[in-house]
Amino acid sequence: MAVLSESLTQILIPAAALIGIGFALLQWLVVSKVKVSADYGKKDGYKDKLIEDEEEGAENADAVIKCSEIQNAISVGATSFLFTQYKYLGIFMGAFAVVIFLFLGSVKGFSTQSEPCTYNPGNLCKPALANAMFSTIAFLLGALTSVLSGFLGMKIATYANARTTLEARKGVGKAFITAFRSGAVMGFLLAANGLLVLYVSINLFKLYYGDDWEGLYESITGYGLGGSSMALFGRVGGGIYTKAADVGADLVGKVEKNIPEDDPRNPAVIADNVGDNVGDIAGMGSDLFGSYAESSCAALFVASISSFGISHDYSAMSYPLTISAMGIVICLITTLFATDLGEIRQVSEIEPTLKRQLLISTILMTAGIAVVSFFALPSEFTLFNFGTEKAVKNWHLFFCVSIGLWAGLVIGYTTEYYTSNAYSPVQDVADSCRTGAATNVIFGLALGYKSVIIPIFAIAIAIYISFSLAAMYGIAVAALGMLSTIATGLAIDAYGPISDNAGGIAEMSGMSHKIRERTDALDAAGNTTAAIGKGFAIGSAALVSLALFGAFVSRAGIKTVDVLTPKVFIGLIVGAMLPYWFSAMTMKSVGSAALKMVEEVRRQFNTIPGLMEGRVKPDYANCVKISTDASLREMIPPGALVMLTPLIAGTLFGVETLAGVLAGSLVSGVQIAISASNTGGAWDNAKKYIEAGASEHAKSLGPKGSDAHKAAVIGDTIGDPLKDTSGPSLNILIKLMAVESLVFAPFFAAHGGLLFKLL
Amino acid sequence: MAVLSESLTQILIPAAALIGIGFALLQWLVVSKVKVSADYGKKDGYKDKLIEDEEEGAENADAVIKCSEIQNAISVGATSFLFTQYKYLGIFMGAFAVVIFLFLGSVKGFSTQSEPCTYNPGNLCKPALANAMFSTIAFLLGALTSVLSGFLGMKIATYANARTTLEARKGVGKAFITAFRSGAVMGFLLAANGLLVLYVSINLFKLYYGDDWEGLYESITGYGLGGSSMALFGRVGGGIYTKAADVGADLVGKVEKNIPEDDPRNPAVIADNVGDNVGDIAGMGSDLFGSYAESSCAALFVASISSFGISHDYSAMSYPLTISAMGIVICLITTLFATDLGEIRQVSEIEPTLKRQLLISTILMTAGIAVVSFFALPSEFTLFNFGTEKAVKNWHLFFCVSIGLWAGLVIGYTTEYYTSNAYSPVQDVADSCRTGAATNVIFGLALGYKSVIIPIFAIAIAIYISFSLAAMYGIAVAALGMLSTIATGLAIDAYGPISDNAGGIAEMSGMSHKIRERTDALDAAGNTTAAIGKGFAIGSAALVSLALFGAFVSRAGIKTVDVLTPKVFIGLIVGAMLPYWFSAMTMKSVGSAALKMVEEVRRQFNTIPGLMEGRVKPDYANCVKISTDASLREMIPPGALVMLTPLIAGTLFGVETLAGVLAGSLVSGVQIAISASNTGGAWDNAKKYIEAGASEHAKSLGPKGSDAHKAAVIGDTIGDPLKDTSGPSLNILIKLMAVESLVFAPFFAAHGGLLFKLL
Repeated sequence: MAVLSESLTQILIPAAALIGIGFALLQWLVVSKVKVSADYGKKDGYKDKLIEDEEEGAENADAVIKCSEIQNAISVGATSFLFTQYKYLGIFMGAFAVVIFLFLGSVKGFSTQSEPCTYNPGNLCKPALANAMFSTIAFLLGALTSVLSGFLGMKIATYANARTTLEARKGVGKAFITAFRSGAVMGFLLAANGLLVLYVSINLFKLYYGDDWEGLYESITGYGLGGSSMALFGRVGGGIYTKAADVGADLVGKVEKNIPEDDPRNPAVIADNVGDNVGDIAGMGSDLFGSYAESSCAALFVASISSFGISHDYSAMSYPLTISAMGIVICLITTLFATDLGEIRQVSEIEPTLKRQLLISTILMTAGIAVVSFFALPSEFTLFNFGTEKAVKNWHLFFCVSIGLWAGLVIGYTTEYYTSNAYSPVQDVADSCRTGAATNVIFGLALGYKSVIIPIFAIAIAIYISFSLAAMYGIAVAALGMLSTIATGLAIDAYGPISDNAGGIAEMSGMSHKIRERTDALDAAGNTTAAIGKGFAIGSAALVSLALFGAFVSRAGIKTVDVLTPKVFIGLIVGAMLPYWFSAMTMKSVGSAALKMVEEVRRQFNTIPGLMEGRVKPDYANCVKISTDASLREMIPPGALVMLTPLIAGTLFGVETLAGVLAGSLVSGVQIAISASNTGGAWDNAKKYIEAGASEHAKSLGPKGSDAHKAAVIGDTIGDPLKDTSGPSLNILIKLMAVESLVFAPFFAAHGGLLFKLL
Repeated sequence: MAVLSESLTQILIPAAALIGIGFALLQWLVVSKVKVSADYGKKDGYKDKLIEDEEEGAENADAVIKCSEIQNAISVGATSFLFTQYKYLGIFMGAFAVVIFLFLGSVKGFSTQSEPCTYNPGNLCKPALANAMFSTIAFLLGALTSVLSGFLGMKIATYANARTTLEARKGVGKAFITAFRSGAVMGFLLAANGLLVLYVSINLFKLYYGDDWEGLYESITGYGLGGSSMALFGRVGGGIYTKAADVGADLVGKVEKNIPEDDPRNPAVIADNVGDNVGDIAGMGSDLFGSYAESSCAALFVASISSFGISHDYSAMSYPLTISAMGIVICLITTLFATDLGEIRQVSEIEPTLKRQLLISTILMTAGIAVVSFFALPSEFTLFNFGTEKAVKNWHLFFCVSIGLWAGLVIGYTTEYYTSNAYSPVQDVADSCRTGAATNVIFGLALGYKSVIIPIFAIAIAIYISFSLAAMYGIAVAALGMLSTIATGLAIDAYGPISDNAGGIAEMSGMSHKIRERTDALDAAGNTTAAIGKGFAIGSAALVSLALFGAFVSRAGIKTVDVLTPKVFIGLIVGAMLPYWFSAMTMKSVGSAALKMVEEVRRQFNTIPGLMEGRVKPDYANCVKISTDASLREMIPPGALVMLTPLIAGTLFGVETLAGVLAGSLVSGVQIAISASNTGGAWDNAKKYIEAGASEHAKSLGPKGSDAHKAAVIGDTIGDPLKDTSGPSLNILIKLMAVESLVFAPFFAAHGGLLFKLL
């Protein structure tokens, strides 16, 4: 048995979650000290903090009032969109909950009889009907937690954006800390919340399930499904919203009218800023919460049918949760390095500081994993391995979790290398703008393709080692390892859109050139961290999907997934096609919505007299409406594709074909997702590189408005849907199909493969 | 035993090949009646055939002389490039032949002892050393045939281009027939030549092997490897050559200097036209020859270890060759429908006529397959199925071949739908040019992604049915079925670059506007047929690779390729990454070479006085040199990636990982290949749609030089490397890795997996 006792485990996990929540609230408190109100500049003792002499407009109380107004407009827009979206998702959730209950209930014909357990036939397990009910409840809980995560993130981000702008008047360091702290609020709230809800659910479910851990952890998988299905719609809907507005605003504003980004005269500018919050923030929050929930569920499920579960070793069983709990503590310490130990003084320090966060959290967490592995696990145990038992030692699991964690770091750093304009790949892309948009696009696509090489090798090595050491459980905990520093990951990730918004607010409120330069620098680093965040999301999604895939295969009772059988192979090739189908839908949606936005923006410029001169305000609401409508309408077909594919494949073609589909979509989707988000990130930063003109080379390409810059803007616009809509949605595609298959596995195993049975 | 006797088979196969060659020569004779010489216009009785009154410049003897000069320049350029390329490839071939011999020879330690056969242990088989030697010879034969195919195709195309231009003066129908006949020369020569060399080789090898068919057909697989490795370098080298020139020429000529495509003042124009011939023609010729050789080899290998081989039933064994022989005859009949039964009178008839060719050949061939299946096969037999035997009937094979054939038609028609500007997908892309290049690119990428759906389902259904009916042999003959109408496929495919060149020659020789309109119409149809040809190439490559994969697995003695083992899974995910790595290399190569070309073209425009006014000729040779150097230098890294991956994966990680790599690269590569070539084709035709202005909608976007047209040109330029370099090379990547694995399988099985053995 493990050194750590059951009762101590029962205390430590919720304690860590509560510490995380407390820390998040503390950060919020600090951020909220920056006042966004009209009498802001008048307070005593404040003025001296501003770098007054350098700035024009810093004193301007009008600017502060404007900031506050704009922030309010963004916040209201984002809240109203999310509420509308949740209304639709509520209907979907209800309907899908019924589907889950009916499908799983029908496995044993809605019988209320207890049955012998599958993996521990000596025990009596609860009836399938109970599993159906609890899976449905878990699904709803997961969905609600996911929605809550996205919503809270959005609220924090819209609270922080104007504060970051105002702090930028005091220097880049203050602005950075405000943005970063706000990101941390989101990171810790989400991580802690996810852990807490899962912990509480398990303990509540246990009241009914008692000794039937097999059924208990089977039902808990519904939590992952709920989390990921909300994340899908959040990512897709939010992605379409934000990019329709962004592309539409840029195409008319920057390209045709030659006005700057985020210029208040542009009618789509509010929609664009709202989009950052509902797409990048709420979407990313839901997404990473989904990954976290799924990897925990996959690990718990495999553990429940291994010796931990059969011998009812609670501490060992809770190993995935304890790892996450440790992660929260480690991330808390890590955050202090950025917020309290030393302050950024120069623009050039921003990226290194963010990068250092990743490194520090990874190093500290490695020690944390060691501690947890040695105390929470027995020194030897057996794990379920597709019908056979695998003997494993506790230090094996230490390696599994650590390799996932370090693979995440490698992916993060690789992403940074390919998307930051401090290195040659992005500089080469910028350079190719000399000969126009076409070469820019060719080089950008090539960069994205190339950027998959190292992450894939990192994932492959992590998979090989963790799989060899601890079978599918190893993969699941490797995924958890990669996500164990999720609080830090989310913090630096949320930092990006907050800075982007801060820049927008600075522009719209008419702040001085210098302040905008600072927010631009924050934003450029934000593009890179956004790409890093996406890298993490994709890398962890790959591991999570594989773990879920393994859990699905175990639960469906398949022993091999042999590529040499036609059933599996056609699944594999069709599965590899799905990410393309999905991307075609989402990109076309963004394109069409952007066209509508362009027409509306043009219409306003043409028909509203005085708009171009800045005398009259544009009709922001109409643009918000276009984005909202497009997003809600267009998220349905790709959502349906992802949600229905496992149901159709499993019901008509059976579990083998479905296994092929999952493997195919996993190995193909991960590549497109990485390349799409890196290509987009690189284009965005190539453009920023030319705009900033920080080196001789960059100056030779610029300034804003030069031919090379125009070519760079085209690349940036193309990259928008790639990096913020289709790319990041793909990791949800692969995870969601896997977790859905896992939840429905008993149904497919019992009634699936109708078509082949008929033939 | 089969109805068809061995001696009759021995007569029919070479007879069909000779008929094919004869027919090709006949077509050549007809084409050669169009005289390209200075005294052309002076001959009696000729003038009345020209539509004199309509044309200005048709009488112009100068134009004919210019045509002849340009044709000569293109032909000399192409020949000299191919010879230079072959010099490098000769060295590679020699070196790789040594590798094959050493690797395969070492399997049994270079022993010269005969051994019991693997699949028919009663018989005595030739020593492994003999197999090594004959595999090497087969490799060299395949390589030479491939080179010959590409070279002949290029010669024919450069012979036909100016003749098509001159015939365009008499009307679009005459020009079409000239281009199409020339395409047919290439199609029939290649199909017949491939069959003949294979037939002769088998019979010569048999002199040594006698009754040891296992060894005989094992060695013959080297033929496929030779064919495909030359095809790889042909496609990659040719693709880089042609697109560096094309992109470079367009970027300066069309975008900066506002001069038309193919304007003789553009220094890169000759390189561009040479490129069409070395890339699209020679590359495509080698590629499809490679597919043909490989699918035949895969089918023959599987047959040799099935009952056909064990009972030494020659007619049944030669079934793949008899199918190809029948294909030549069917295609001959099909060609007559286009060349002799009815003539095209209007531009709008071009595409339907080419499409009809596909349909006619498919319908006729279905009957042909039935005939061959019932006469050449015994009514019942058994096939090898990964260690077990599968009982099969002759009509099962009829279905296998036919499903491949019809899947090819579905793929061809789908490709046409997505790349022809007669349908809404391309028109939507054209429409998106209204809002600029960015939306054009977004819509184009989405179109390419969407266009994979139907082809993948077609391939999946073909695989499922043929696999279920006749295991891996079924897949191999399904691939052969898709390629059975290769002569027609190549004819309509080669028609494209010939028309493209014809347009170039018309422009350069200063022919009238009307003639250029005709050649442009031919060319637009050519873009679609080129895309169809690529669709076929990719579809057949998918089936061929799977068949080779199956043969490899059989030969390596693996019984299952289980995704649930880490060795296989890491292979799968890394394999799925390879097409991205490969595409990154080729696209970057095109981009860099194009940048150099742009600089050279700009330099010439800036430093050669009178060039822009047309008084002085540009220095074409320098541009040709840039393309040549870039192509030869840049084809090595992607070539090495493809050639070394199986060797490294097999030697270090063993056959299971290698099997994963092959499956991964197959299911991932086929998607990128289809989407890349369709995206590129669609952009090209969207641009042509705007230029032609044939409908109200098209007129509203044009004319040439409008903003929408400029956006379309950018899309077209981006599409160039996608559709002509990276896309079509990918199908060789997946085939070549599979056939290489097959050839080296005995070595990997004996000595592979070093790394895992060490750990």
